[in-house]
Amino acid sequence: MQRYFTDEIYEQKSTYLLSGETYHHITHVMRMKEDDLFYLVFSNQVTIQARITSITDQKVYVKEVAKERQEKELPLSITIACGYPKGDKFDWIVQKATELGATDFIGFPAKTSIVKWDQKKLAKKQQRLTKIAQEAAEQSQRSFIPEVTLLAKEKEFLTLFSQFDYILVAYEEAAKQDETASLAKLLQEVQPKSRILAIFGPEGGFLPEEVATFKQNQAVLCGLGPRILRAETAPLYLLSAVSYHLELLNK
Amino acid sequence: MQRYFTDEIYEQKSTYLLSGETYHHITHVMRMKEDDLFYLVFSNQVTIQARITSITDQKVYVKEVAKERQEKELPLSITIACGYPKGDKFDWIVQKATELGATDFIGFPAKTSIVKWDQKKLAKKQQRLTKIAQEAAEQSQRSFIPEVTLLAKEKEFLTLFSQFDYILVAYEEAAKQDETASLAKLLQEVQPKSRILAIFGPEGGFLPEEVATFKQNQAVLCGLGPRILRAETAPLYLLSAVSYHLELLNK
Repeated sequence: MQRYFTDEIYEQKSTYLLSGETYHHITHVMRMKEDDLFYLVFSNQVTIQARITSITDQKVYVKEVAKERQEKELPLSITIACGYPKGDKFDWIVQKATELGATDFIGFPAKTSIVKWDQKKLAKKQQRLTKIAQEAAEQSQRSFIPEVTLLAKEKEFLTLFSQFDYILVAYEEAAKQDETASLAKLLQEVQPKSRILAIFGPEGGFLPEEVATFKQNQAVLCGLGPRILRAETAPLYLLSAVSYHLELLNK
Repeated sequence: MQRYFTDEIYEQKSTYLLSGETYHHITHVMRMKEDDLFYLVFSNQVTIQARITSITDQKVYVKEVAKERQEKELPLSITIACGYPKGDKFDWIVQKATELGATDFIGFPAKTSIVKWDQKKLAKKQQRLTKIAQEAAEQSQRSFIPEVTLLAKEKEFLTLFSQFDYILVAYEEAAKQDETASLAKLLQEVQPKSRILAIFGPEGGFLPEEVATFKQNQAVLCGLGPRILRAETAPLYLLSAVSYHLELLNK
Protein backbone atom coordinates (compact mmCIF):
# COMPACT_ATOMS: atom_id res chain seq x y z
CA MET A 1 0.00 0.00 0.00
CA GLN A 2 1.24 3.49 -0.89
CA ARG A 3 2.85 5.49 1.87
CA TYR A 4 3.06 9.27 2.29
CA PHE A 5 4.87 11.42 4.81
CA THR A 6 3.42 14.63 6.25
CA ASP A 7 5.15 17.36 8.27
CA GLU A 8 2.15 17.47 10.65
CA ILE A 9 2.32 16.10 14.16
CA TYR A 10 -0.33 13.47 14.72
CA GLU A 11 -3.40 14.32 16.76
CA GLN A 12 -6.76 12.58 16.59
CA LYS A 13 -9.00 14.43 14.13
CA SER A 14 -12.06 13.56 12.08
CA THR A 15 -10.34 14.61 8.83
CA TYR A 16 -6.78 15.08 7.61
CA LEU A 17 -5.93 17.15 4.60
CA LEU A 18 -3.17 16.70 2.03
CA SER A 19 -2.02 19.17 -0.59
CA GLY A 20 1.02 20.09 -2.70
CA GLU A 21 3.29 17.30 -3.96
CA THR A 22 1.46 14.59 -2.05
CA TYR A 23 -1.85 15.75 -3.56
CA HIS A 24 -0.27 15.56 -6.98
CA HIS A 25 1.14 12.08 -6.39
CA ILE A 26 -2.16 10.72 -5.02
CA THR A 27 -4.35 12.12 -7.78
CA HIS A 28 -2.13 12.26 -10.86
CA VAL A 29 0.54 9.60 -10.40
CA MET A 30 -1.40 6.95 -8.45
CA ARG A 31 -4.79 8.09 -9.82
CA MET A 32 -6.48 7.24 -6.53
CA LYS A 33 -10.18 7.80 -6.02
CA GLU A 34 -12.59 8.15 -3.08
CA ASP A 35 -12.42 5.19 -0.67
CA ASP A 36 -8.88 4.27 -1.74
CA LEU A 37 -6.49 3.53 1.13
CA PHE A 38 -2.90 4.52 1.88
CA TYR A 39 -0.58 4.92 4.84
CA LEU A 40 0.00 8.40 6.19
CA VAL A 41 3.10 8.90 8.35
CA PHE A 42 3.18 11.89 10.72
CA SER A 43 6.33 13.65 11.80
CA ASN A 44 6.15 12.14 15.29
CA GLN A 45 6.32 8.64 13.73
CA VAL A 46 2.63 7.80 14.16
CA THR A 47 1.38 6.00 11.06
CA ILE A 48 -2.30 5.65 10.19
CA GLN A 49 -4.13 3.81 7.49
CA ALA A 50 -6.09 6.59 5.75
CA ARG A 51 -9.17 6.35 3.52
CA ILE A 52 -9.89 9.09 0.97
CA THR A 53 -13.23 10.79 1.71
CA SER A 54 -13.06 13.43 -0.99
CA ILE A 55 -10.78 14.99 -3.59
CA THR A 56 -11.02 18.63 -4.68
CA ASP A 57 -8.95 20.68 -7.11
CA GLN A 58 -6.05 21.16 -4.70
CA LYS A 59 -6.69 18.93 -1.72
CA VAL A 60 -7.26 15.34 -0.68
CA TYR A 61 -9.34 14.74 2.46
CA VAL A 62 -8.86 11.49 4.34
CA LYS A 63 -9.99 9.91 7.57
CA GLU A 64 -8.21 7.52 9.86
CA VAL A 65 -9.18 3.87 9.48
CA ALA A 66 -6.65 2.33 11.87
CA LYS A 67 -3.18 2.80 13.28
CA GLU A 68 -0.31 0.86 11.80
CA ARG A 69 0.69 -1.74 14.34
CA GLN A 70 4.00 -3.20 13.20
CA GLU A 71 7.22 -1.53 14.39
CA LYS A 72 9.12 -0.54 11.25
CA GLU A 73 12.22 0.97 12.85
CA LEU A 74 15.39 -0.60 14.20
CA PRO A 75 15.45 -0.64 18.03
CA LEU A 76 18.49 1.64 17.99
CA SER A 77 19.65 4.61 16.01
CA ILE A 78 22.34 4.16 13.35
CA THR A 79 23.99 7.07 11.62
CA ILE A 80 25.82 6.05 8.44
CA ALA A 81 28.81 8.34 7.85
CA CYS A 82 30.63 8.05 4.52
CA GLY A 83 33.80 9.63 3.23
CA TYR A 84 32.56 11.04 -0.10
CA PRO A 85 32.72 8.24 -2.69
CA LYS A 86 32.96 8.73 -6.45
CA GLY A 87 30.14 9.30 -8.92
CA ASP A 88 26.63 8.48 -7.84
CA LYS A 89 27.61 5.88 -5.25
CA PHE A 90 26.40 8.01 -2.36
CA ASP A 91 22.99 8.17 -4.05
CA TRP A 92 22.58 4.52 -3.84
CA ILE A 93 24.13 4.11 -0.41
CA VAL A 94 21.34 6.47 0.77
CA GLN A 95 18.67 4.57 -1.14
CA LYS A 96 19.69 1.09 0.01
CA ALA A 97 20.65 2.06 3.57
CA THR A 98 17.29 3.81 3.98
CA GLU A 99 15.54 0.59 2.96
CA LEU A 100 17.67 -1.24 5.52
CA GLY A 101 16.76 1.10 8.38
CA ALA A 102 19.49 3.76 8.67
CA THR A 103 18.49 6.63 10.96
CA ASP A 104 20.43 9.33 9.16
CA PHE A 105 23.45 10.05 6.99
CA ILE A 106 26.57 12.16 7.23
CA GLY A 107 28.90 12.76 4.29
CA PHE A 108 32.39 14.17 4.77
CA PRO A 109 35.53 14.63 2.66
CA ALA A 110 37.92 11.87 3.70
CA LYS A 111 41.60 12.24 2.82
CA THR A 112 41.34 9.85 -0.15
CA SER A 113 37.99 11.23 -1.38
CA ILE A 114 38.44 12.27 -5.00
CA VAL A 115 35.35 14.43 -5.38
CA LYS A 116 35.68 18.03 -4.27
CA TRP A 117 32.31 19.67 -3.66
CA ASP A 118 31.98 23.39 -2.90
CA GLN A 119 29.14 24.75 -0.74
CA LYS A 120 26.81 25.25 -3.71
CA LYS A 121 27.37 21.72 -4.98
CA LEU A 122 26.98 20.33 -1.45
CA ALA A 123 23.63 22.08 -1.03
CA LYS A 124 22.38 20.68 -4.33
CA LYS A 125 23.65 17.20 -3.53
CA GLN A 126 22.03 17.32 -0.09
CA GLN A 127 18.68 18.18 -1.66
CA ARG A 128 19.00 15.31 -4.11
CA LEU A 129 19.98 12.80 -1.42
CA THR A 130 17.12 13.92 0.83
CA LYS A 131 14.69 13.28 -2.01
CA ILE A 132 16.20 9.80 -2.54
CA ALA A 133 15.87 9.11 1.20
CA GLN A 134 12.23 10.19 1.15
CA GLU A 135 11.34 7.94 -1.78
CA ALA A 136 13.17 4.99 -0.25
CA ALA A 137 11.48 5.60 3.12
CA GLU A 138 8.06 5.58 1.46
CA GLN A 139 8.84 2.48 -0.55
CA SER A 140 10.28 0.50 2.35
CA GLN A 141 7.52 1.61 4.75
CA ARG A 142 9.65 3.52 7.22
CA SER A 143 8.20 5.70 10.01
CA PHE A 144 10.38 8.71 9.23
CA ILE A 145 12.65 10.11 6.54
CA PRO A 146 16.37 9.83 7.35
CA GLU A 147 18.17 13.17 7.34
CA VAL A 148 21.22 13.80 5.19
CA THR A 149 24.01 16.13 6.37
CA LEU A 150 26.89 16.88 4.03
CA LEU A 151 29.97 18.43 5.59
CA ALA A 152 32.61 20.54 3.90
CA LYS A 153 35.44 19.57 6.27
CA GLU A 154 36.52 16.36 7.97
CA LYS A 155 37.20 18.39 11.14
CA GLU A 156 33.51 19.26 11.46
CA PHE A 157 32.77 15.56 11.40
CA LEU A 158 34.92 14.89 14.45
CA THR A 159 33.01 17.48 16.51
CA LEU A 160 29.85 15.35 16.14
CA PHE A 161 31.35 12.24 17.76
CA SER A 162 30.29 13.23 21.28
CA GLN A 163 26.61 12.81 20.33
CA PHE A 164 26.99 9.03 20.00
CA ASP A 165 27.06 6.08 22.42
CA TYR A 166 29.15 3.85 20.14
CA ILE A 167 31.36 4.63 17.19
CA LEU A 168 32.43 1.95 14.71
CA VAL A 169 34.89 2.32 11.85
CA ALA A 170 34.70 -0.24 9.06
CA TYR A 171 38.37 -0.53 8.18
CA GLU A 172 39.64 -2.77 5.44
CA GLU A 173 42.76 -3.62 7.45
CA ALA A 174 40.47 -4.89 10.24
CA ALA A 175 39.00 -7.41 7.79
CA LYS A 176 42.45 -8.48 6.69
CA GLN A 177 43.56 -8.88 10.30
CA ASP A 178 40.52 -11.04 10.88
CA GLU A 179 38.77 -8.69 13.35
CA THR A 180 35.48 -10.44 14.03
CA ALA A 181 34.50 -9.43 17.55
CA SER A 182 33.55 -5.73 17.58
CA LEU A 183 30.17 -5.83 15.88
CA ALA A 184 28.87 -8.97 17.58
CA LYS A 185 30.02 -7.64 20.97
CA LEU A 186 28.24 -4.34 20.43
CA LEU A 187 25.00 -6.00 19.33
CA GLN A 188 25.05 -8.34 22.30
CA GLU A 189 25.45 -5.58 24.87
CA VAL A 190 23.75 -2.59 23.25
CA GLN A 191 20.82 -0.94 25.02
CA PRO A 192 17.65 -0.07 23.06
CA LYS A 193 17.65 3.49 21.71
CA SER A 194 21.46 3.70 21.79
CA ARG A 195 22.97 6.00 19.22
CA ILE A 196 25.55 4.35 16.96
CA LEU A 197 27.79 6.10 14.47
CA ALA A 198 29.17 3.80 11.77
CA ILE A 199 31.95 5.25 9.61
CA PHE A 200 32.85 4.05 6.12
CA GLY A 201 35.72 5.15 3.89
CA PRO A 202 35.65 6.11 0.21
CA GLU A 203 37.04 3.75 -2.47
CA GLY A 204 40.62 4.47 -1.41
CA GLY A 205 39.86 3.66 2.22
CA PHE A 206 41.07 5.64 5.23
CA LEU A 207 44.67 6.63 5.78
CA PRO A 208 46.25 5.23 8.96
CA GLU A 209 46.38 8.78 10.38
CA GLU A 210 42.60 9.20 9.89
CA VAL A 211 41.94 5.90 11.61
CA ALA A 212 44.24 6.97 14.46
CA THR A 213 42.24 10.19 14.89
CA PHE A 214 38.95 8.30 14.90
CA LYS A 215 40.34 5.93 17.54
CA GLN A 216 41.51 8.85 19.70
CA ASN A 217 37.88 9.98 19.56
CA GLN A 218 36.49 6.71 20.95
CA ALA A 219 35.93 4.88 17.67
CA VAL A 220 36.36 1.10 17.57
CA LEU A 221 37.63 -0.77 14.49
CA CYS A 222 35.14 -3.21 13.12
CA GLY A 223 35.55 -6.08 10.65
CA LEU A 224 32.65 -7.10 8.44
CA GLY A 225 33.72 -10.61 7.53
CA PRO A 226 36.74 -11.90 5.59
CA ARG A 227 35.80 -10.63 2.13
CA ILE A 228 36.80 -7.12 1.06
CA LEU A 229 33.61 -5.11 0.54
CA ARG A 230 33.38 -2.07 -1.71
CA ALA A 231 32.72 1.35 -0.18
CA GLU A 232 29.05 1.14 -1.10
CA THR A 233 28.50 -2.45 0.08
CA ALA A 234 29.92 -2.24 3.61
CA PRO A 235 27.12 -0.01 5.07
CA LEU A 236 24.52 -2.47 3.77
CA TYR A 237 26.28 -5.38 5.47
CA LEU A 238 26.34 -3.50 8.77
CA LEU A 239 22.66 -2.51 8.67
CA SER A 240 21.59 -6.02 7.63
CA ALA A 241 23.59 -7.52 10.49
CA VAL A 242 22.02 -5.11 12.99
CA SER A 243 18.53 -5.91 11.73
CA TYR A 244 19.21 -9.65 11.73
CA HIS A 245 20.58 -9.66 15.27
CA LEU A 246 17.97 -7.37 16.85
CA GLU A 247 14.86 -7.94 14.73
CA LEU A 248 15.11 -11.63 13.81
CA LEU A 249 17.55 -13.48 16.07
CA ASN A 250 16.85 -11.76 19.40
CA LYS A 251 13.32 -10.75 18.75
CA MET B 1 46.76 -6.83 -3.25
CA GLN B 2 45.58 -7.75 -6.75
CA ARG B 3 43.95 -11.13 -7.18
CA TYR B 4 43.78 -13.32 -10.27
CA PHE B 5 41.97 -16.56 -10.98
CA THR B 6 43.41 -19.39 -13.05
CA ASP B 7 41.68 -22.48 -14.47
CA GLU B 8 44.63 -24.61 -13.37
CA ILE B 9 44.38 -27.02 -10.46
CA TYR B 10 47.00 -26.25 -7.85
CA GLU B 11 50.05 -28.46 -7.55
CA GLN B 12 53.38 -27.51 -6.07
CA LYS B 13 55.68 -26.29 -8.86
CA SER B 14 58.76 -24.12 -9.06
CA THR B 15 57.13 -21.77 -11.60
CA TYR B 16 53.58 -20.91 -12.64
CA LEU B 17 52.80 -19.28 -15.92
CA LEU B 18 50.07 -16.78 -16.81
CA SER B 19 48.97 -15.67 -20.26
CA GLY B 20 45.99 -14.24 -22.13
CA GLU B 21 43.71 -11.77 -20.34
CA THR B 22 45.50 -12.15 -17.02
CA TYR B 23 48.83 -11.41 -18.71
CA HIS B 24 47.28 -8.31 -20.24
CA HIS B 25 45.85 -7.11 -16.92
CA ILE B 26 49.11 -7.68 -15.03
CA THR B 27 51.35 -5.98 -17.55
CA HIS B 28 49.16 -3.33 -19.22
CA VAL B 29 46.48 -2.43 -16.70
CA MET B 30 48.35 -2.84 -13.41
CA ARG B 31 51.77 -2.25 -15.02
CA MET B 32 53.40 -4.71 -12.64
CA LYS B 33 57.10 -5.49 -12.85
CA GLU B 34 59.47 -8.22 -11.69
CA ASP B 35 59.25 -8.90 -7.96
CA ASP B 36 55.72 -7.48 -7.69
CA LEU B 37 53.28 -9.59 -5.69
CA PHE B 38 49.68 -10.70 -6.24
CA TYR B 39 47.33 -13.47 -5.19
CA LEU B 40 46.77 -16.34 -7.58
CA VAL B 41 43.65 -18.44 -7.01
CA PHE B 42 43.56 -21.96 -8.46
CA SER B 43 40.39 -23.72 -9.53
CA ASN B 44 40.48 -26.04 -6.51
CA GLN B 45 40.33 -22.99 -4.21
CA VAL B 46 43.98 -22.98 -3.21
CA THR B 47 45.30 -19.40 -3.13
CA ILE B 48 48.97 -18.51 -3.19
CA GLN B 49 50.85 -15.27 -2.89
CA ALA B 50 52.83 -15.11 -6.12
CA ARG B 51 55.94 -13.08 -6.95
CA ILE B 52 56.73 -12.21 -10.57
CA THR B 53 60.06 -13.72 -11.64
CA SER B 54 59.99 -12.63 -15.28
CA ILE B 55 57.76 -11.11 -17.93
CA THR B 56 58.04 -11.93 -21.64
CA ASP B 57 56.04 -10.80 -24.65
CA GLN B 58 53.09 -13.08 -23.94
CA LYS B 59 53.65 -14.61 -20.54
CA VAL B 60 54.19 -13.78 -16.89
CA TYR B 61 56.22 -16.25 -14.80
CA VAL B 62 55.67 -16.30 -11.05
CA LYS B 63 56.75 -18.36 -8.08
CA GLU B 64 54.89 -19.18 -4.90
CA VAL B 65 55.84 -17.08 -1.87
CA ALA B 66 53.26 -18.39 0.59
CA LYS B 67 49.77 -19.83 0.82
CA GLU B 68 46.90 -17.56 1.75
CA ARG B 69 45.82 -18.47 5.26
CA GLN B 70 42.54 -16.73 5.90
CA GLU B 71 39.32 -18.55 4.96
CA LYS B 72 37.49 -16.28 2.52
CA GLU B 73 34.39 -18.37 1.94
CA LEU B 74 31.16 -18.73 3.89
CA PRO B 75 31.02 -22.04 5.79
CA LEU B 76 28.00 -23.10 3.74
CA SER B 77 26.93 -22.81 0.14
CA ILE B 78 24.30 -20.25 -0.84
CA THR B 79 22.74 -20.15 -4.26
CA ILE B 80 20.96 -16.86 -4.99
CA ALA B 81 18.02 -17.42 -7.33
CA CYS B 82 16.27 -14.36 -8.76
CA GLY B 83 13.15 -13.96 -10.84
CA TYR B 84 14.49 -11.80 -13.67
CA PRO B 85 14.35 -8.17 -12.53
CA LYS B 86 14.21 -5.14 -14.81
CA GLY B 87 17.10 -3.29 -16.46
CA ASP B 88 20.57 -3.88 -15.11
CA LYS B 89 19.49 -4.84 -11.59
CA PHE B 90 20.66 -8.43 -12.01
CA ASP B 91 24.10 -7.08 -12.91
CA TRP B 92 24.47 -5.47 -9.60
CA ILE B 93 22.85 -8.24 -7.60
CA VAL B 94 25.62 -10.46 -9.01
CA GLN B 95 28.31 -7.88 -8.24
CA LYS B 96 27.22 -7.17 -4.67
CA ALA B 97 26.19 -10.72 -3.79
CA THR B 98 29.56 -12.00 -5.03
CA GLU B 99 31.28 -9.54 -2.69
CA LEU B 100 29.07 -10.83 0.11
CA GLY B 101 29.94 -14.49 -0.48
CA ALA B 102 27.25 -16.01 -2.73
CA THR B 103 28.24 -19.43 -4.07
CA ASP B 104 26.38 -19.17 -7.36
CA PHE B 105 23.43 -17.61 -9.12
CA ILE B 106 20.33 -18.82 -10.92
CA GLY B 107 18.07 -16.52 -12.91
CA PHE B 108 14.59 -17.59 -14.01
CA PRO B 109 11.52 -15.92 -15.52
CA ALA B 110 9.06 -15.45 -12.66
CA LYS B 111 5.42 -14.81 -13.50
CA THR B 112 5.70 -11.05 -12.88
CA SER B 113 9.09 -10.71 -14.61
CA ILE B 114 8.74 -8.08 -17.30
CA VAL B 115 11.88 -8.85 -19.29
CA LYS B 116 11.58 -11.59 -21.89
CA TRP B 117 14.93 -12.96 -22.93
CA ASP B 118 15.31 -15.46 -25.77
CA GLN B 119 18.10 -18.04 -25.85
CA LYS B 120 20.48 -15.73 -27.69
CA LYS B 121 19.92 -12.88 -25.26
CA LEU B 122 20.22 -15.28 -22.30
CA ALA B 123 23.58 -16.55 -23.55
CA LYS B 124 24.87 -12.99 -23.92
CA LYS B 125 23.56 -11.95 -20.53
CA GLN B 126 25.10 -15.04 -18.90
CA GLN B 127 28.49 -14.15 -20.36
CA ARG B 128 28.18 -10.59 -19.07
CA LEU B 129 27.11 -11.69 -15.57
CA THR B 130 29.94 -14.24 -15.38
CA LYS B 131 32.41 -11.46 -16.16
CA ILE B 132 30.88 -9.28 -13.43
CA ALA B 133 31.10 -12.19 -10.97
CA GLN B 134 34.75 -12.72 -11.86
CA GLU B 135 35.67 -9.07 -11.32
CA ALA B 136 33.78 -8.93 -8.03
CA ALA B 137 35.40 -12.19 -6.87
CA GLU B 138 38.85 -10.78 -7.60
CA GLN B 139 38.07 -7.49 -5.89
CA SER B 140 36.53 -9.03 -2.78
CA GLN B 141 39.26 -11.69 -2.52
CA ARG B 142 37.11 -14.76 -2.98
CA SER B 143 38.53 -18.27 -3.49
CA PHE B 144 36.42 -19.05 -6.54
CA ILE B 145 34.23 -17.37 -9.15
CA PRO B 146 30.48 -17.90 -8.59
CA GLU B 147 28.74 -19.53 -11.54
CA VAL B 148 25.75 -17.92 -13.21
CA THR B 149 22.98 -20.05 -14.73
CA LEU B 150 20.16 -18.34 -16.60
CA LEU B 151 17.06 -20.43 -17.26
CA ALA B 152 14.48 -19.95 -19.99
CA LYS B 153 11.59 -21.50 -18.04
CA GLU B 154 10.43 -21.38 -14.43
CA LYS B 155 9.69 -25.13 -14.62
CA GLU B 156 13.39 -25.91 -15.16
CA PHE B 157 14.08 -24.03 -11.97
CA LEU B 158 11.85 -26.33 -9.92
CA THR B 159 13.73 -29.41 -11.12
CA LEU B 160 16.87 -28.09 -9.39
CA PHE B 161 15.30 -27.95 -5.91
CA SER B 162 16.28 -31.52 -5.01
CA GLN B 163 19.98 -30.53 -5.02
CA PHE B 164 19.58 -28.39 -1.90
CA ASP B 165 19.41 -29.03 1.84
CA TYR B 166 17.34 -25.92 2.62
CA ILE B 167 15.21 -23.70 0.43
CA LEU B 168 14.16 -20.20 1.52
CA VAL B 169 11.77 -17.86 -0.27
CA ALA B 170 11.98 -14.18 0.59
CA TYR B 171 8.34 -13.23 0.30
CA GLU B 172 7.10 -9.70 0.88
CA GLU B 173 3.92 -10.99 2.54
CA ALA B 174 6.12 -12.82 5.07
CA ALA B 175 7.61 -9.45 6.11
CA LYS B 176 4.17 -7.94 6.41
CA GLN B 177 2.99 -10.87 8.50
CA ASP B 178 5.98 -10.35 10.74
CA GLU B 179 7.69 -13.67 9.95
CA THR B 180 10.94 -13.47 11.89
CA ALA B 181 11.86 -17.04 12.77
CA SER B 182 12.86 -18.90 9.58
CA LEU B 183 16.28 -17.42 8.90
CA ALA B 184 17.49 -17.37 12.52
CA LYS B 185 16.29 -20.95 13.00
CA LEU B 186 18.11 -22.13 9.91
CA LEU B 187 21.36 -20.38 10.89
CA GLN B 188 21.22 -21.82 14.38
CA GLU B 189 20.80 -25.41 13.23
CA VAL B 190 22.57 -25.50 9.88
CA GLN B 191 25.49 -27.89 9.39
CA PRO B 192 28.71 -26.67 7.73
CA LYS B 193 28.79 -27.25 3.97
CA SER B 194 24.98 -27.37 3.74
CA ARG B 195 23.56 -26.24 0.41
CA ILE B 196 21.03 -23.44 0.69
CA LEU B 197 18.86 -22.10 -2.11
CA ALA B 198 17.50 -18.60 -1.46
CA ILE B 199 14.80 -17.41 -3.85
CA PHE B 200 13.96 -13.76 -4.54
CA GLY B 201 11.16 -12.31 -6.67
CA PRO B 202 11.34 -9.61 -9.32
CA GLU B 203 9.97 -6.09 -8.62
CA GLY B 204 6.38 -7.32 -8.80
CA GLY B 205 7.06 -10.08 -6.29
CA PHE B 206 5.82 -13.65 -6.56
CA LEU B 207 2.21 -14.58 -7.23
CA PRO B 208 0.54 -16.64 -4.48
CA GLU B 209 0.40 -19.63 -6.88
CA GLU B 210 4.20 -19.43 -7.41
CA VAL B 211 4.78 -19.34 -3.67
CA ALA B 212 2.42 -22.30 -3.24
CA THR B 213 4.46 -24.28 -5.79
CA PHE B 214 7.72 -23.42 -4.06
CA LYS B 215 6.24 -24.53 -0.74
CA GLN B 216 5.08 -27.82 -2.23
CA ASN B 217 8.70 -28.30 -3.21
CA GLN B 218 10.02 -27.91 0.37
CA ALA B 219 10.64 -24.17 0.34
CA VAL B 220 10.15 -22.22 3.57
CA LEU B 221 8.93 -18.60 3.64
CA CYS B 222 11.42 -16.23 5.16
CA GLY B 223 11.00 -12.66 6.43
CA LEU B 224 13.96 -10.27 6.28
CA GLY B 225 12.88 -7.72 8.86
CA PRO B 226 9.87 -5.37 8.97
CA ARG B 227 10.90 -3.03 6.17
CA ILE B 228 9.98 -3.79 2.57
CA LEU B 229 13.20 -4.37 0.64
CA ARG B 230 13.54 -3.93 -3.10
CA ALA B 231 14.20 -6.95 -5.30
CA GLU B 232 17.89 -6.10 -5.49
CA THR B 233 18.37 -5.36 -1.78
CA ALA B 234 16.87 -8.52 -0.26
CA PRO B 235 19.66 -10.92 -1.40
CA LEU B 236 22.26 -8.60 0.16
CA TYR B 237 20.41 -8.63 3.49
CA LEU B 238 20.30 -12.42 3.48
CA LEU B 239 23.99 -12.88 2.65
CA SER B 240 25.05 -10.26 5.21
CA ALA B 241 22.95 -11.98 7.89
CA VAL B 242 24.50 -15.36 7.06
CA SER B 243 28.01 -13.92 7.21
CA TYR B 244 27.28 -12.06 10.44
CA HIS B 245 25.84 -15.12 12.16
CA LEU B 246 28.43 -17.67 11.02
CA GLU B 247 31.58 -15.59 10.54
CA LEU B 248 31.31 -12.96 13.29
CA LEU B 249 28.79 -13.97 15.96
CA ASN B 250 29.42 -17.73 16.11
CA LYS B 251 33.00 -17.70 15.04
